Amino acid sequence: MAYFEKVQKIEFEGPASTNPFSFKYYNPSEVVMGKTMKEQLRFAMSYWHTFTYMGNDPFGSATMFRPWDNHECSMEVAKERVHAAFEFMEKAQIPYFCFHDRDIAPEGKDLAETNARLDEIVAVIKEEMKRTGIKCLWGTTNAFGNPRFVHGAGTSCNATVFAYAAAQIKKAIEITKELGGENYVFWGGREGYETLLNTNTELELDNMARLLKMACNYAEQIGFTGQFLIEPKPKEPTKHQYDTDAATVMAFLRKYDLMDKFKLNIEANHATLAMHTFQHELNMCRINGVLGSVDANMGDPMLGWDTDQFPTNLYDTTLAMYEILLGGGFTKGGLNFDSKVRRGSFEEEDLFLAYIAGMDAFAKGLKVAAKLLEDGVFEDFKENRYASYKEGLGKDIVDGKADFKTLEAYALNNGIAPNTSGRQEMLESILNQYILETK
Amino acid sequence: MAYFEKVQKIEFEGPASTNPFSFKYYNPSEVVMGKTMKEQLRFAMSYWHTFTYMGNDPFGSATMFRPWDNHECSMEVAKERVHAAFEFMEKAQIPYFCFHDRDIAPEGKDLAETNARLDEIVAVIKEEMKRTGIKCLWGTTNAFGNPRFVHGAGTSCNATVFAYAAAQIKKAIEITKELGGENYVFWGGREGYETLLNTNTELELDNMARLLKMACNYAEQIGFTGQFLIEPKPKEPTKHQYDTDAATVMAFLRKYDLMDKFKLNIEANHATLAMHTFQHELNMCRINGVLGSVDANMGDPMLGWDTDQFPTNLYDTTLAMYEILLGGGFTKGGLNFDSKVRRGSFEEEDLFLAYIAGMDAFAKGLKVAAKLLEDGVFEDFKENRYASYKEGLGKDIVDGKADFKTLEAYALNNGIAPNTSGRQEMLESILNQYILETK
Amino acid sequence: MAYFEKVQKIEFEGPASTNPFSFKYYNPSEVVMGKTMKEQLRFAMSYWHTFTYMGNDPFGSATMFRPWDNHECSMEVAKERVHAAFEFMEKAQIPYFCFHDRDIAPEGKDLAETNARLDEIVAVIKEEMKRTGIKCLWGTTNAFGNPRFVHGAGTSCNATVFAYAAAQIKKAIEITKELGGENYVFWGGREGYETLLNTNTELELDNMARLLKMACNYAEQIGFTGQFLIEPKPKEPTKHQYDTDAATVMAFLRKYDLMDKFKLNIEANHATLAMHTFQHELNMCRINGVLGSVDANMGDPMLGWDTDQFPTNLYDTTLAMYEILLGGGFTKGGLNFDSKVRRGSFEEEDLFLAYIAGMDAFAKGLKVAAKLLEDGVFEDFKENRYASYKEGLGKDIVDGKADFKTLEAYALNNGIAPNTSGRQEMLESILNQYILETK
Amino acid sequence: MAYFEKVQKIEFEGPASTNPFSFKYYNPSEVVMGKTMKEQLRFAMSYWHTFTYMGNDPFGSATMFRPWDNHECSMEVAKERVHAAFEFMEKAQIPYFCFHDRDIAPEGKDLAETNARLDEIVAVIKEEMKRTGIKCLWGTTNAFGNPRFVHGAGTSCNATVFAYAAAQIKKAIEITKELGGENYVFWGGREGYETLLNTNTELELDNMARLLKMACNYAEQIGFTGQFLIEPKPKEPTKHQYDTDAATVMAFLRKYDLMDKFKLNIEANHATLAMHTFQHELNMCRINGVLGSVDANMGDPMLGWDTDQFPTNLYDTTLAMYEILLGGGFTKGGLNFDSKVRRGSFEEEDLFLAYIAGMDAFAKGLKVAAKLLEDGVFEDFKENRYASYKEGLGKDIVDGKADFKTLEAYALNNGIAPNTSGRQEMLESILNQYILETK
Repeated sequence: MAYFEKVQKIEFEGPASTNPFSFKYYNPSEVVMGKTMKEQLRFAMSYWHTFTYMGNDPFGSATMFRPWDNHECSMEVAKERVHAAFEFMEKAQIPYFCFHDRDIAPEGKDLAETNARLDEIVAVIKEEMKRTGIKCLWGTTNAFGNPRFVHGAGTSCNATVFAYAAAQIKKAIEITKELGGENYVFWGGREGYETLLNTNTELELDNMARLLKMACNYAEQIGFTGQFLIEPKPKEPTKHQYDTDAATVMAFLRKYDLMDKFKLNIEANHATLAMHTFQHELNMCRINGVLGSVDANMGDPMLGWDTDQFPTNLYDTTLAMYEILLGGGFTKGGLNFDSKVRRGSFEEEDLFLAYIAGMDAFAKGLKVAAKLLEDGVFEDFKENRYASYKEGLGKDIVDGKADFKTLEAYALNNGIAPNTSGRQEMLESILNQYILETK
Repeated sequence: MAYFEKVQKIEFEGPASTNPFSFKYYNPSEVVMGKTMKEQLRFAMSYWHTFTYMGNDPFGSATMFRPWDNHECSMEVAKERVHAAFEFMEKAQIPYFCFHDRDIAPEGKDLAETNARLDEIVAVIKEEMKRTGIKCLWGTTNAFGNPRFVHGAGTSCNATVFAYAAAQIKKAIEITKELGGENYVFWGGREGYETLLNTNTELELDNMARLLKMACNYAEQIGFTGQFLIEPKPKEPTKHQYDTDAATVMAFLRKYDLMDKFKLNIEANHATLAMHTFQHELNMCRINGVLGSVDANMGDPMLGWDTDQFPTNLYDTTLAMYEILLGGGFTKGGLNFDSKVRRGSFEEEDLFLAYIAGMDAFAKGLKVAAKLLEDGVFEDFKENRYASYKEGLGKDIVDGKADFKTLEAYALNNGIAPNTSGRQEMLESILNQYILETK
Repeated sequence: MAYFEKVQKIEFEGPASTNPFSFKYYNPSEVVMGKTMKEQLRFAMSYWHTFTYMGNDPFGSATMFRPWDNHECSMEVAKERVHAAFEFMEKAQIPYFCFHDRDIAPEGKDLAETNARLDEIVAVIKEEMKRTGIKCLWGTTNAFGNPRFVHGAGTSCNATVFAYAAAQIKKAIEITKELGGENYVFWGGREGYETLLNTNTELELDNMARLLKMACNYAEQIGFTGQFLIEPKPKEPTKHQYDTDAATVMAFLRKYDLMDKFKLNIEANHATLAMHTFQHELNMCRINGVLGSVDANMGDPMLGWDTDQFPTNLYDTTLAMYEILLGGGFTKGGLNFDSKVRRGSFEEEDLFLAYIAGMDAFAKGLKVAAKLLEDGVFEDFKENRYASYKEGLGKDIVDGKADFKTLEAYALNNGIAPNTSGRQEMLESILNQYILETK
Repeated sequence: MAYFEKVQKIEFEGPASTNPFSFKYYNPSEVVMGKTMKEQLRFAMSYWHTFTYMGNDPFGSATMFRPWDNHECSMEVAKERVHAAFEFMEKAQIPYFCFHDRDIAPEGKDLAETNARLDEIVAVIKEEMKRTGIKCLWGTTNAFGNPRFVHGAGTSCNATVFAYAAAQIKKAIEITKELGGENYVFWGGREGYETLLNTNTELELDNMARLLKMACNYAEQIGFTGQFLIEPKPKEPTKHQYDTDAATVMAFLRKYDLMDKFKLNIEANHATLAMHTFQHELNMCRINGVLGSVDANMGDPMLGWDTDQFPTNLYDTTLAMYEILLGGGFTKGGLNFDSKVRRGSFEEEDLFLAYIAGMDAFAKGLKVAAKLLEDGVFEDFKENRYASYKEGLGKDIVDGKADFKTLEAYALNNGIAPNTSGRQEMLESILNQYILETK
């Protein structure tokens, strides 16, 4: 049966179209920098925000009532949800999906039943994947929602909870493998603390590393070749989360000698909650070789929580794609819309309108970024700006041939060569011109 | 001559005293946890905020007019400033000072003259140190104020500026050694970026690491045995500073294999600008073995810039001293008041009143922290909270004897042991009781 | 039956007590500034956070499982909740309670049934009030949780929702009157906007004023003499809430000529979300004659959402009580603990421990504030600081006898009299001394 | 003589131009909504940021060295600055300027000399105005930079400082009148407090109102018909500024019965420091009839201070122009670039590049906003969204014919009519389409 009868397959109609249910900028087969848009952008649907978020917030209950979902945690609903989800992805032309174990199947009375339920749903998903050609970008486990994780999962003060989390992750990796997932994500929703007065941070972080090492070992055992990803977030739900931002995660990975096993999954809104720009976090990952995948959304800079809005800011999408292209483009990763429709956008059509908004914004961003790179706008400017490190004194510094004595001698004799302007305003204006004029 | 004629030596008179020019809680010779307060707290005066900050802010000019300072950058003023500073420290019973090169002597027409001026002032300082017994906690260089550092120092796009910065640091390490400084601090006031549109972050960070390695080599060459410290700050003056917070600095030190050469100098207000508590940053340093020294001040949680207020919040001073004592107390580091009197506190007496405020707040914090540790208030609570890792399943996890299969088997068979309350409210109330009742 | 069997009535045992289930500072019958502590503080329990909040947050489900509450919205649970609540208040010595209509009784199939259910529960509450002597500080309506209020209540774009909200408020005022409530609160949880792109702010604000005028008229009709209160909040759940802060509410009340009908209910955490200190908001209300009541809690300055923590910060409680006492103390208002135990403090005992923490913190704050006022610490300082407005030129300014010409003549002839220090650091240190030494 | 020899008059060359010294979107004579762009936008140069800001910040000294300015406060420099400023405005096609008294002439030894100096410079400016046809948008006084204003000006605790401020404002209004200024702005840079411990907010606010009333009276006396404007800002330099945001200013104006004498000057970066969007503040002014003028710039949402960047964000410029056009467009006000080049953009050419960036961004914003209004995109959506208030129940509410009893009767009988989606994502996507496609 069809759940979205009112909406047909979303097609590219170009910016002149006044049909809200069409793409204005996303043309899947259009080639940009040697690949199709579909290949460059690798859009994914987030199962949780799109198919289990029903509009509740801390001050109010669900506003969304779907024909396939009676707001009960039954297996029947879970199966219909699969059908609805694949119908939606087909119509919206979304080639990938991402999921938590608990999104796709409700927990049972114990872990054994829960796992059996997962298997039952995974079978349904596999059928739909086969039917549609839609793939799994990544899977993960939800080890934060159930009250057992009140004090953390891998960082719980309760060793039996650590064990339970490990068991969950084991199963989640197995089903991700079963579904051909290209990555597996670790987001530590409760891996942090509420107050230092009761927290042994050292033990908790050591334990977190132990858990990740076990995951690496297990993946090797079963031959799971997907990329492991860690997703930074500074806070929320906990007061402080250990995976604060890209730098913090890298400090952790380096400490525990895990840097070659993990890449990062950067979420736009998590970046801004950490008081970084989205581009900054992607840049830090790129120059450290750990840019894995992206959770595409946006926050509200005036609000202090994770709003997970659909990304429509063209500056963000352009500069994100700029870093991604500069890093060579996605290999296993992609753009997962970890975005939810606003609580007031509760109609089924809003799901399509929201994905169109986000996909168009990133499609435009891709094209602008590609043009900026092709024209060498910023890269040439930088090449010239740092030219002094290409020869003479600067080359000696880079080549390790200088020391404090030689540099002091230089400074005493020569002072400095004049600085030149950084031209920030001009560069921002050129960025505007590229956004507005790139076709 | 005496510049602070109206103020006598500040003495401990206890909390009953109504004399504002007395210590209520700081009693230098009182023993707390096996050392005198003076030895535990190792208070230092910041030369810059105390003797060169004259009340200017981005919207207004100087409000402070000192008898020894005509607001001109002359060597005469610089020398009188030394005398005033040591008179102040003696009267305020501050046993250490910290300085930037440019605080103590004005720049000359070129680097040679600048260095000569430094030598001239260093001689005056040494005399005063000898006379008074006051010591140097740390020195540093100001490689951010002069316009030559407009695009950074070690991360400048201009190689000759890199060289100039290296020459400055070389000299600053030399005079710090000459003054017996126990540490040398790196704070990268312009080591960051204003916009990613014109910045090669990879080259800049590599260069920063090159500079630090040269510093290590040079210190070894000249036998400087002081501790090298890096001071994190997330932003201001630049939009983004590379040394964002403790975790970011550790990610950097580990990447470039510098972790054994550096410790951290944690500033309270820099912590809060990074959206961390002061205690958090100290805790992260402690568990990673890099807690070096502290810049004691406080910010205003409602303001988004570095206010550098004198620290008077007893929660902050208690919890900071708690981490410091838990880490074994200071060895080479100390509590440097990187704090400035408010622009409206422009009278000379305010300098004393402000230091008294800060020193009393930390003295009280020390005593409360010591009592909390002696009574095992939080440590016993934690010991009990994490007890499940001391035996059985938990011990296996910690000892590396568990893997995903054994943990899954446990979870399938046993589920979880019940969680217990984290008791945050009770612990916060006990903290209040200790602050209020510790004598 | 008794639900809290493990806990006896909480008694004042003083700071030396190590019994966590005792008051250290709150001694209900102790007289401070001419009234008992009980009369000065007028503590109230928030029905919602204490008896309907079960630990859920945006990332996790309930952690609290109470013997009287099976997490179903039944009338049986609602009645047992009343008994549990009054047992709790009796044991914790809380003399008042505050409630939303929807806290006490679940919604029925339509408004008529919902109202009938309210009446049924109100009868039970009245019995318990009679039995215990506990009173109602204020009532309010929940016109934000149900999906019908997705676009607002009084500011909904849907006129039938406006009508529904009006009907709810009518009933809520009636039951508040029935319960002898001394105030009635308006908090506009959805009265704001998500995006200006779809919002007619002018109509929405006009409608809000219309609603409030209808409420005034109805209160007069039925002889409800409780004080109407508006509670400011800048954001959350909506992106922007119209009642941003005290000043914004006063701008609104003055525009619509409602200033004499309403006072304000200031919440600590709402103040900080608006980037004001709690004291600031109370101060603004005091000097404008609209300080009505207080929602006592605290936020986390590092977090950007309403954490509603139990208030344990002694600076906040002292300075809040300072403003309240300076304003003459509470008349109809009181200190309602709009505070919830942390999600990890899920045991029943935590409810007592949390209220003790908050009540003790305010009891101490009351005593410190009273001593500061009795000793004239800050008030005398201010009296002296503004002395120039008591005579001569300053008095002419205040008395309206000066104009630009006379003032210019004065300035041309006299320049200015010297300024004196604001002494912020000294005053902060004295505040510490009073907090630490007041018995 | 010419100071900007390298730059010719900036001309409109359209988006295809690669000449950085040309307008891509600002075509002064192009007609948009019935007026030329020049008339709609009324661009003004800020004298202070453009001609007296030399690149200093709290951590570093000047980076800008202009041929006409030796960084000394002499009358010679002041005169050359006038010539340079008018050459700049002519070349950049900026038709207005804004100034503080202290921008144009340095203070003398006393107020009399200071005023005489102002007269001398005003004469030079008048000549240049006559020569070029450039006009004065507004004047103001700087009553915050001099140390005499350390505790405020109109809100100083020192009555003689109040008098001095009054004298300054008197003179500033006089010279604004002399220069034909169309507005006069009050920005209270020190009108606020650093700590409530030493502040009598009630007296200070009363005094502020007294000062403004004197200004109104004096303006009437001398026949100054320019519009008085108040510019809100929440903080910086003071911890708290009384004119926090538009709502706070309106609360103040209404309290002191000044609402008909003042409008507001909204600054983008001040809005964001108050945690509002720029559009929000303009919207609040528009619906209250007090939208006077605009300080055009932008802040960095990741930074907590006033960065005063040149506005290049097309969302901000579009939505600002949307509110301005919806309010009928500017009458006396205009777009004053209260923006400064970045410290690293220290070359003279950067002044042009920065103004071009800002003017082009607003020109594009004007065209997009005009198209959105012409097509009725958002206004039609809103018209439909609030249609229920046009008839029946909704009309009765608006017309004052409903009360709680009639509304309750309606709700009991009818429940609510279904809500419809707010369509935020679709509207944001349409906004993108208009930004990208409007020619």
